[in-house]
Amino acid sequence: MRTVYWNKDGAVEMIDQTLLPSELKIIKCKRVEEVAEAIKSLRVRGAPAIGVAAAYGIALCAFNYRGEDPEEMKKEIVKCADLLRSTRPTAVNLFHAIDFTLKRALTGDSVEEIKRLALESAEFLANEDIRINRLIGEMGQELLEDGDRVMTHCNAGRLATVDWGTALGIIRSAMERGKNIEVIATETRPLNQGSRLTTWELLEDDIPVTLITDSMSGYVMRRGLVDKIIVGADRIVRDAVFNKIGTYSHAVIAKHHGIPFYVAAPSSTFDLERREEDVVIEERDRRELIYCGDRQIAPLDVNVFNPAFDATPLELISAIICEKGIISPITEERMREVLRK
Amino acid sequence: MRTVYWNKDGAVEMIDQTLLPSELKIIKCKRVEEVAEAIKSLRVRGAPAIGVAAAYGIALCAFNYRGEDPEEMKKEIVKCADLLRSTRPTAVNLFHAIDFTLKRALTGDSVEEIKRLALESAEFLANEDIRINRLIGEMGQELLEDGDRVMTHCNAGRLATVDWGTALGIIRSAMERGKNIEVIATETRPLNQGSRLTTWELLEDDIPVTLITDSMSGYVMRRGLVDKIIVGADRIVRDAVFNKIGTYSHAVIAKHHGIPFYVAAPSSTFDLERREEDVVIEERDRRELIYCGDRQIAPLDVNVFNPAFDATPLELISAIICEKGIISPITEERMREVLRK
Repeated sequence: MRTVYWNKDGAVEMIDQTLLPSELKIIKCKRVEEVAEAIKSLRVRGAPAIGVAAAYGIALCAFNYRGEDPEEMKKEIVKCADLLRSTRPTAVNLFHAIDFTLKRALTGDSVEEIKRLALESAEFLANEDIRINRLIGEMGQELLEDGDRVMTHCNAGRLATVDWGTALGIIRSAMERGKNIEVIATETRPLNQGSRLTTWELLEDDIPVTLITDSMSGYVMRRGLVDKIIVGADRIVRDAVFNKIGTYSHAVIAKHHGIPFYVAAPSSTFDLERREEDVVIEERDRRELIYCGDRQIAPLDVNVFNPAFDATPLELISAIICEKGIISPITEERMREVLRK
Repeated sequence: MRTVYWNKDGAVEMIDQTLLPSELKIIKCKRVEEVAEAIKSLRVRGAPAIGVAAAYGIALCAFNYRGEDPEEMKKEIVKCADLLRSTRPTAVNLFHAIDFTLKRALTGDSVEEIKRLALESAEFLANEDIRINRLIGEMGQELLEDGDRVMTHCNAGRLATVDWGTALGIIRSAMERGKNIEVIATETRPLNQGSRLTTWELLEDDIPVTLITDSMSGYVMRRGLVDKIIVGADRIVRDAVFNKIGTYSHAVIAKHHGIPFYVAAPSSTFDLERREEDVVIEERDRRELIYCGDRQIAPLDVNVFNPAFDATPLELISAIICEKGIISPITEERMREVLRK
């Protein structure tokens, strides 16, 4: 089952990831505003998945156009694209997917052609995402050995993509090859993507997984319980990898213990025109740390710092696995070389 | 207000820390079993506080004795001590406080004398705890400069002691001397002692505090937002400091950034007859990671690893501050020398 897909009645459907693991519910977005809300409130999340969701959002906007003027329609679509761009600032795939779909849709000459181009582009990106994740999995699995215990942070699995996953895709590909892999999943505060989503999707696939708190990563590494670490990425710039807050801490601790630290991400995650200092890190609502569900876990008036991502300098990363190849050792030159393929 | 104290009607009263920060409730324990339950379920927690609570538990047992036979009474008290010893395995202050109180109580010749000795011993430990924390604060504050931003993990504050606190006691003493200190508190999963207790007690005292998730410690250190780190300890052995799970991760990250990492603890925390490998690390219930309050945050059948403490090797620690002096650099010899004072 895909995480996000086009429903033939002209709606975008997706798993509402805020309800997992207690409820598996598919929501139907009939208007682009609903897609934007779903991205903003993390009903769909994960850099590749939000890119595809946004592309479908543009298709939805095209299908919802009731007039007959292609130029007016294009203006509406550009407005929709702006709305979708404003949802989340850090992951670059979002902007790539919007630009890709918009550019193609705007080449249409008639209302019908614009609809077709927008939907075809979104469907292309969705299919491409799965194809790319399979390639990442195939290449990345060579880095894993039978019996490896792999730690991961947040969710870079099928729920973060259309299907298969990036970091978890590598684990799936290794297991498809007959390697036994055990996963250690960090819960990933404050939104618990690790405990809610990674464990859920791995259990669905009968992949052994043990849940720990984020702060236990040092302990499990020191005890020799972790052979490798694989995470996803939201944006890869010239000097750093942006990913879920906490990634940097795990990378520093992995370096201290000499444990390989891998990043798995499609080439659409790269943004080599920028450096770390050029990227805005999204700061999310203080309530994410004050409440857990209905339960109050901090004083209501406490000051909170809640960045959603951090930047890990390239020197802490052993390899980046993208669909075009494995980048290791990681230099700007080598990244450009692999991306040109 | 003390965290735990003797009520003249013959009961042990304490703040129920499981209800903070939403409710400040004092619970009254009339039987030693209630004290044991309170320690086990973390209504009272923090190595020094549970030591004093257990000492009062022994006094309670003495006061509840209704017979007239001092020998029978002593047997009851020994049984109570065993019950209290079985509550939590890692913090050594608990065992020290029980042994101290028991030894004195057992020297009594009459029922009345045993009662008096047990209560006097517990009251002595409670007062001593405050006196010691003040000394730790006075010595430790010399390590802090005006304007310092100090990160702390878990709660080593007045709620972890009878009053004043160890790690937070140092911050209080520094502020008493007119230094401006800002605190960064990690939420401390899975039981959120940082978000529930540390922020609460600092706000009560108007000490500026910012709450972060545990996984953000690397990010705030890399951004230059942390000048020093101070944590408490549950047990200090020849080669390591045992403290709340996550301490080791923060210590590794601090080392990477060259940030001083201090441990504040009374001399009763030291257990130099043991090494790291001799200490049992308490593993707590898997439900602590599956639920947050009533909210389910992980699949019910997921495998969970939930150690409550970790061990930080001495080489990662810049100094240990105890009431007898500052130990730095930290060697077994230097620890023994300071403890002999």
